[in-house]
Amino acid sequence: MASRNRISLDAMGGDFGPSVVIGGAAVALERRPELEFILYGDEAAIRKELAKYAKLAAISRIEHCDVHISMEDKPSKALRAGRWKSGMWRAIEAVKSGDADVCISAGNTGALMAMSKFCLRTMSGIERPAMAALWPTLKGESVVLDVGANVGAEAGQLVDFALMGAAMARALYDLDRPTVGLLNIGVEEVKGQEDVREAGQLLRESSLSGLNYHGFVEGDDLGRGTVDVVVTEGFAGNIALKTAEGTAKQIAQYLRSAMSRSLFAKIGYFFAKGAFDQLREKMDPRKVNGAVLLGLNGVVIKSHGGTDAEGFAAAIEMGHDMVANGIMEKITDDLKQFGDSRAQAANSASEEDAGS
Amino acid sequence: MASRNRISLDAMGGDFGPSVVIGGAAVALERRPELEFILYGDEAAIRKELAKYAKLAAISRIEHCDVHISMEDKPSKALRAGRWKSGMWRAIEAVKSGDADVCISAGNTGALMAMSKFCLRTMSGIERPAMAALWPTLKGESVVLDVGANVGAEAGQLVDFALMGAAMARALYDLDRPTVGLLNIGVEEVKGQEDVREAGQLLRESSLSGLNYHGFVEGDDLGRGTVDVVVTEGFAGNIALKTAEGTAKQIAQYLRSAMSRSLFAKIGYFFAKGAFDQLREKMDPRKVNGAVLLGLNGVVIKSHGGTDAEGFAAAIEMGHDMVANGIMEKITDDLKQFGDSRAQAANSASEEDAGS
Repeated sequence: MASRNRISLDAMGGDFGPSVVIGGAAVALERRPELEFILYGDEAAIRKELAKYAKLAAISRIEHCDVHISMEDKPSKALRAGRWKSGMWRAIEAVKSGDADVCISAGNTGALMAMSKFCLRTMSGIERPAMAALWPTLKGESVVLDVGANVGAEAGQLVDFALMGAAMARALYDLDRPTVGLLNIGVEEVKGQEDVREAGQLLRESSLSGLNYHGFVEGDDLGRGTVDVVVTEGFAGNIALKTAEGTAKQIAQYLRSAMSRSLFAKIGYFFAKGAFDQLREKMDPRKVNGAVLLGLNGVVIKSHGGTDAEGFAAAIEMGHDMVANGIMEKITDDLKQFGDSRAQAANSASEEDAGS
Repeated sequence: MASRNRISLDAMGGDFGPSVVIGGAAVALERRPELEFILYGDEAAIRKELAKYAKLAAISRIEHCDVHISMEDKPSKALRAGRWKSGMWRAIEAVKSGDADVCISAGNTGALMAMSKFCLRTMSGIERPAMAALWPTLKGESVVLDVGANVGAEAGQLVDFALMGAAMARALYDLDRPTVGLLNIGVEEVKGQEDVREAGQLLRESSLSGLNYHGFVEGDDLGRGTVDVVVTEGFAGNIALKTAEGTAKQIAQYLRSAMSRSLFAKIGYFFAKGAFDQLREKMDPRKVNGAVLLGLNGVVIKSHGGTDAEGFAAAIEMGHDMVANGIMEKITDDLKQFGDSRAQAANSASEEDAGS
């Protein structure tokens, strides 16, 4: 029997609170029967939803919290008001104390990041956590990070992102050495890409065993699935993610209006409905819901605030799979190995200096 | 009768050289009969193509150049080898000398930027040129800049981009006060967005008569058409542009494979073919081919290197429309007005200081 996989949920987070969170947990439990939940939030509201799902209720524990973080609170305010006692904080803290293996919240992104950093702290050697998203591609799926935890990143931080993203791809996709690309722009000799270039050089020279460095990729390589892991700083990463989502919605809208414009189009739609359903499923943003905060002493997953139970279930399952496949151990090993190869590179450089 | 609109073409630029450039000019001439062309490049190659289009040949002049810039040359090398004498350089120079109203090239982007800056120089008060693209949206079309001329931009430069983009929207879309948004990410209180925030404050306070400042927008607002002009620094802008292109290709591929998967789907496709054709036209990247280098003493347009005659014609027509609607005058006026309001703001600030 597989070991239990314990998940702490911020039950009040997201646009719809417990109805989506508890409903999502019930959906995930159907597909991952080894799950267990700790539900943090208003006990009465949680009980009301939990009453609908007997199987879920049997493997869930409720921890009542009086304080809820709103979707609009600024991170600093949320931290002041919600530290130690809010449902969000306590769900994160459960990972720290070892009560849970992973925490999932659909709440306020900024607050979740601030609390996660404050509570879990970054891993040794990691300066800043990154937010990693799953990106559907023509070949399957890629990991893209950072999609908005930070603005800007120095070369060393981009290398850290590469290591963490590769560990995530290894945990999720069962790959030995995922390919990693650095997001860049095609124009040559534009100033300001020094960090990206330097990160490329570091990745090439260090030849880490946990990843296969591919080189630079551009925005259109994301959907193409050119590499398993795309690394970028958070401003461009967030804009790429939102732009892709917006473009998909825009084209879906074009398609809907084209298919309802004439009688022939409607007949065509009728015949091809199965194909359109497949397409819709392929483009369903709920299936890739969930961005992971990587680089902390514990795994925290951010679900879209506006998702439904199906989408929230995807975020839970993503958390389950990462933990079941030892994401934290993989990241720790990779960081250690990179630390060693950095030390080796420094040593051989100084030997060369001494020899010259 | 409308006045002539004189266009200089880098006839050897792009992946296909004269066949696409001359072919594109012929297509554009059909739709904009007031056009005139000066064709820079290898005379024999140009003559060969021109022989196919009598009407075009009648209003075109050939200027033979021995030196051609390859698509792979680094900008610095292209500048050293091609200055004064390459077709690309001389097409740009034609704008400077007043022989042409606008220059269009499908050649090497970096070389075109370097030569344009060197030859035309930036307008007074503009530190860096920006590259502006047309973005198809659910509402129609928006101007997006910078899509890759520079990496990073200070607040004052973002304001310059806003002014230039608004002038372009006024020239192309016949709007009095286009709405302008600054591209940003949704996460609150992330460090590093100071320039974007400061630019927002400058735009809000200066209340320029040539534009209507909307506030921040996110990546998904691009396809939605939330504003007429989206302003960003060039790294994120280029990645957004390429990501949207990639996503559109990805979905088109999904759609193709869905429509050929079953007999019913094929029958559906047969009936809905008209609708699919409309959709394909709507998503046709050739229709929005052409990015404009703004902020120089003259208008230079970069066409995609891999486009066909139809796409190159779109770039020519874009140049024609901008010049016919006084793009340069509009930018100059807006910059002057902003200079005045900056001075006023500075004055009132110092008066306040004196009074306090």
